[in-house]
Amino acid sequence: MKRALLASTSTLHEQDYLEYLLPEIKSFFKDSKEVIFIPFARPGGITHDEYTEKAAVAFKKAGIKLRGLHEFKDMQTAIASAKGIFTGGGNTFLLVSELYRNKLMAGLQQAVKNGVPYMGTSAGTNIAGLTMQTTNDMPIVYPPSFKTLGIVPFNINPHYLDPDKNSTHKGETRETRIKEFHKINTQPVVGLREGSWLLVENNKIALKGELSARIFKLEKVPFEIETGSELNELAEA
Amino acid sequence: MKRALLASTSTLHEQDYLEYLLPEIKSFFKDSKEVIFIPFARPGGITHDEYTEKAAVAFKKAGIKLRGLHEFKDMQTAIASAKGIFTGGGNTFLLVSELYRNKLMAGLQQAVKNGVPYMGTSAGTNIAGLTMQTTNDMPIVYPPSFKTLGIVPFNINPHYLDPDKNSTHKGETRETRIKEFHKINTQPVVGLREGSWLLVENNKIALKGELSARIFKLEKVPFEIETGSELNELAEA
Repeated sequence: MKRALLASTSTLHEQDYLEYLLPEIKSFFKDSKEVIFIPFARPGGITHDEYTEKAAVAFKKAGIKLRGLHEFKDMQTAIASAKGIFTGGGNTFLLVSELYRNKLMAGLQQAVKNGVPYMGTSAGTNIAGLTMQTTNDMPIVYPPSFKTLGIVPFNINPHYLDPDKNSTHKGETRETRIKEFHKINTQPVVGLREGSWLLVENNKIALKGELSARIFKLEKVPFEIETGSELNELAEA
Repeated sequence: MKRALLASTSTLHEQDYLEYLLPEIKSFFKDSKEVIFIPFARPGGITHDEYTEKAAVAFKKAGIKLRGLHEFKDMQTAIASAKGIFTGGGNTFLLVSELYRNKLMAGLQQAVKNGVPYMGTSAGTNIAGLTMQTTNDMPIVYPPSFKTLGIVPFNINPHYLDPDKNSTHKGETRETRIKEFHKINTQPVVGLREGSWLLVENNKIALKGELSARIFKLEKVPFEIETGSELNELAEA
């Protein structure tokens, strides 16, 4: 049975890294002696070691040991025998490229199917969707495919931002970008605001945190769902 | 000799489509009886016909006839014999995919080398760079390559936005995204603010409009260049 904790962001304004998620992390990984950290998204270009250290410091506060996937000689075996997995945020194109380059995407997918708890923040949450095609990131590297883990039967837009009605900027709003996505793709998109997360367990996908989420379905007017709601029925008919 | 007019945006706040650029368009295309419009980027999912009509209305104000590339049975020949080309904004991934799918990228590049005046706005400007990898758009479709026209020897980030110091949002700033780009790529990036454009003629690349532009070079602190400056020396050493 799949278990996943998929957060829009790692960090809230004026908080430490993962601070608001610590109680959730503690309960989510309560049976995981050690969690494997996937540092490939490298936010701001930080090294794998630096990023792992940062995540390990936060996880230590929740009493959980973290180890960087890049430290393993055989990363495929490390994923196959993992007791818990956390993929940090950063650049989604880089993350997806590295997962494919190291032949880890299928193994990661299988591990989650086998019930290994998977946590993601930002880019790590984006790849839990069917494809990475609703990322906000720059295409700094060319991945072999946009297909991702499909832990949930829809796409996720992390760091979802409502249109700023006072803005004079003419770049596309997030809503316009997702509308363009739906001219070519059919799957629903969950706009997950900072402070929200999805909790996947017991065959249910629930919205958690204080905020509502914005749902974009093909040829439908976008709508809000309240925290606590289940998103299972979002999957395509 | 290459000639290009590369605008950050088609539209300024509280103005009509292309309004602020009309005098520039008139002079840039003064020898072009007819300009071919590339509508592939489909902003907001607008159809090729609708988009061409919108652009034609604006160009008519500058006294120039516009015709959509999609109206030609043989698009490759249309590009090869074009007297002027304008690529509109929208989604860069879709634009680049369609250019490759219709086998137009090389012909477009050749036409510009032959001296056919090329105008772009937003996505149409982004593809004038070496690669599309500093686009702000969502990867709604998977293009066969990120390589683009290389009319200028650097990358362009259209709709460049300065970091908002009052923001509580934790998504990456544009500057952070470009910094991540430079962890993997070496070419300079020109952050082109709305209202700015690059004018390429007489072997010179000049910044035009009222604003300065922000320049990002590998391992250098980002810096501003004033309007009227030449950008030729930005190319890699």
